[in-house]
Amino acid sequence: MKSLDKHRKIILAATKVFAKKGFFNARISDIAKEAKVADGTIYLYFANKLDILLSVFAQETEKLIEEVSTLLNAEADVQKKLVIFIRHHLQAMRKNRPLAEVIHIELRHTSKLIREYRTNTFGEYLNLIAAIISEGQAQGVFRADLDVQLAKLTLFGALDETSRIWLVNSADLDHAVSQLALLFQNAFGATKVQ
Amino acid sequence: MKSLDKHRKIILAATKVFAKKGFFNARISDIAKEAKVADGTIYLYFANKLDILLSVFAQETEKLIEEVSTLLNAEADVQKKLVIFIRHHLQAMRKNRPLAEVIHIELRHTSKLIREYRTNTFGEYLNLIAAIISEGQAQGVFRADLDVQLAKLTLFGALDETSRIWLVNSADLDHAVSQLALLFQNAFGATKVQ
Repeated sequence: MKSLDKHRKIILAATKVFAKKGFFNARISDIAKEAKVADGTIYLYFANKLDILLSVFAQETEKLIEEVSTLLNAEADVQKKLVIFIRHHLQAMRKNRPLAEVIHIELRHTSKLIREYRTNTFGEYLNLIAAIISEGQAQGVFRADLDVQLAKLTLFGALDETSRIWLVNSADLDHAVSQLALLFQNAFGATKVQ
Repeated sequence: MKSLDKHRKIILAATKVFAKKGFFNARISDIAKEAKVADGTIYLYFANKLDILLSVFAQETEKLIEEVSTLLNAEADVQKKLVIFIRHHLQAMRKNRPLAEVIHIELRHTSKLIREYRTNTFGEYLNLIAAIISEGQAQGVFRADLDVQLAKLTLFGALDETSRIWLVNSADLDHAVSQLALLFQNAFGATKVQ
């Protein structure tokens, strides 16, 4: 087996183990067992459990980016793009609890992680929001006096808090999407949306 | 020294030690030294460091509630109340880094904490936002079709994310306040604010 294959195999196994046991309860030996490699092999590729977790997280974030980009590119209306991003994020967080847990907890746990992920893959994900806002401003649909970076943090903060609190116990997703859409179409919009 | 006095003295000492060393680096023995009590005395009042931290957090949150309530009660205009809450929260997070750290990190670290604090002192703090929104709805200033609980989470999420990312490196507070005020006055408002 080639190195790259083994690396990929461990990531895949870790994703399964994390999903099943949660990041905190998962052990390196569980991941090794799932990947059918020796415990020691894991340490050839990863420094520790956190390192594996971050790789899984980066991979999952890339998937999020890919999925939502496809949806966004197929839509011309910028107000609808906003709703697409909101719906996709809340849906993804509800479907993928381990990913949601990393975003809600691990991402905040050390300033190092925050720095890394704000500028790397996760930062790229958040910049999809910034791109929607800028596009809306260029079209005159969103207000010109919005600070794009602050508006981006505002929407992400709202999505993050909503997915953390509201979506627990499988609350009504459509209701949350339509409320957040209304709030942000009016927050960003140059004209009032009824 | 009476029990209640000792309890209070430990909380006060812990607040100072946490502010100076951070929650993670602070040791029980540092707190004992600052409070001028024996290490063992701490354990008569608190189970562990986390228990002390939560008591400090509850106390700091009570202070936040008291301060911002005074400001809110002195203002009749509900749009201005919204701005007061936004400004006070961002200011408080910038001034009190240890409190901000607990809100940003510790509060999310275990579901137990989240459950506890959503329904206790911290939940009370968040309900001040809900009260402003309901008041605005009753006056016809805010839209009647807003889900108050979701609107509350949206504003808190935005404040939390902004204070976590934007306010690091002492970015322009007034700019953040005016941008968030604009966003939420329009998100919540029955009519457009320019």
